[in-house]
Amino acid sequence: MRRVAIALLHYPVLDAQGAIVTSAVTNLDVHDLSRSAKSYGMSDYFVVTPIEAQRELVGKICKHWAEGSSGRRIPARKEALALVRIVASLEDAVAAMGGPDAVEVWTTGARADGASLTMAEARGRVEGEGKGILIVYGTAWGLPPEVHAGADARLAPIVGARATGYNHLSVRSACAIYADRLLGQRE
Amino acid sequence: MRRVAIALLHYPVLDAQGAIVTSAVTNLDVHDLSRSAKSYGMSDYFVVTPIEAQRELVGKICKHWAEGSSGRRIPARKEALALVRIVASLEDAVAAMGGPDAVEVWTTGARADGASLTMAEARGRVEGEGKGILIVYGTAWGLPPEVHAGADARLAPIVGARATGYNHLSVRSACAIYADRLLGQRE
Repeated sequence: MRRVAIALLHYPVLDAQGAIVTSAVTNLDVHDLSRSAKSYGMSDYFVVTPIEAQRELVGKICKHWAEGSSGRRIPARKEALALVRIVASLEDAVAAMGGPDAVEVWTTGARADGASLTMAEARGRVEGEGKGILIVYGTAWGLPPEVHAGADARLAPIVGARATGYNHLSVRSACAIYADRLLGQRE
Repeated sequence: MRRVAIALLHYPVLDAQGAIVTSAVTNLDVHDLSRSAKSYGMSDYFVVTPIEAQRELVGKICKHWAEGSSGRRIPARKEALALVRIVASLEDAVAAMGGPDAVEVWTTGARADGASLTMAEARGRVEGEGKGILIVYGTAWGLPPEVHAGADARLAPIVGARATGYNHLSVRSACAIYADRLLGQRE
């Protein structure tokens, strides 16, 4: 089984008009994604933002849970937040996992254009042997084309069986579903 | 295919010590669960709280998206929030779906004790014909035994393949994963 980690990008991401922007960190993302990562046996959750003040904020939140009263009150949350790594860029996240020779970058998105890995193929690779895998999520309106283009693979989007034509999951929900698709127990 | 709806209970739910409490509504739950419900073709998302001021608050949030500037700015969000139904009790949610003769109540939880439906069985039932199905989630530390006991079925918990022994997903994540397990497109 390969090492699997996730990265949540706050830059570069798209806004509603397709421009590249930097989004603000959402506290609940830090909690929800770390809980999903921990529940599915992932190794790291990289919170990626180039804004130093935002990295300091996330650091304070994590320190509060690692050392403060909340971690004593809810020990399970403390365990999850221990997976959080705060970095300035996607490149820094890759470097923290050992560099490009040690890790493959897989991107995610709500659209199918350019997707190179079906869920079944991705699951097969996760269960095999090889480099670590870093699964990248975008905040705001998602990852820009250049992040997809620079990745080793792009995962197929999540699709419901009832063909609603509506696909606007939160990043918290999408991250949970991909974790379950790739690392969930099958019956 | 059967009608599927979800209910998020704020009472009765458990606190960390196992006492029955009423939890506060979380704005992001309203958004995330409605987006998951809409993406997977569910019919309704019941926000259940006996506190009138909290029902009014959720009503204001939904009205803001239905009629205000946010709905024009993000039309997809408006569509999702249109699934929200605000009720005072689980019984009221069942009544809104036509009463016990028209709906089965399925409960969820992080523990396996008393679970009566595997994911595969549940999926098979969803894809068949029959009454509507109302899937019930608890906030705080989850649903109390009496809610499980009063239900028609209890779903198996979500488990990861790497056997981490850690199972502390957020209700937003759990709701997304159950939606995908029961209503996601299979490859």
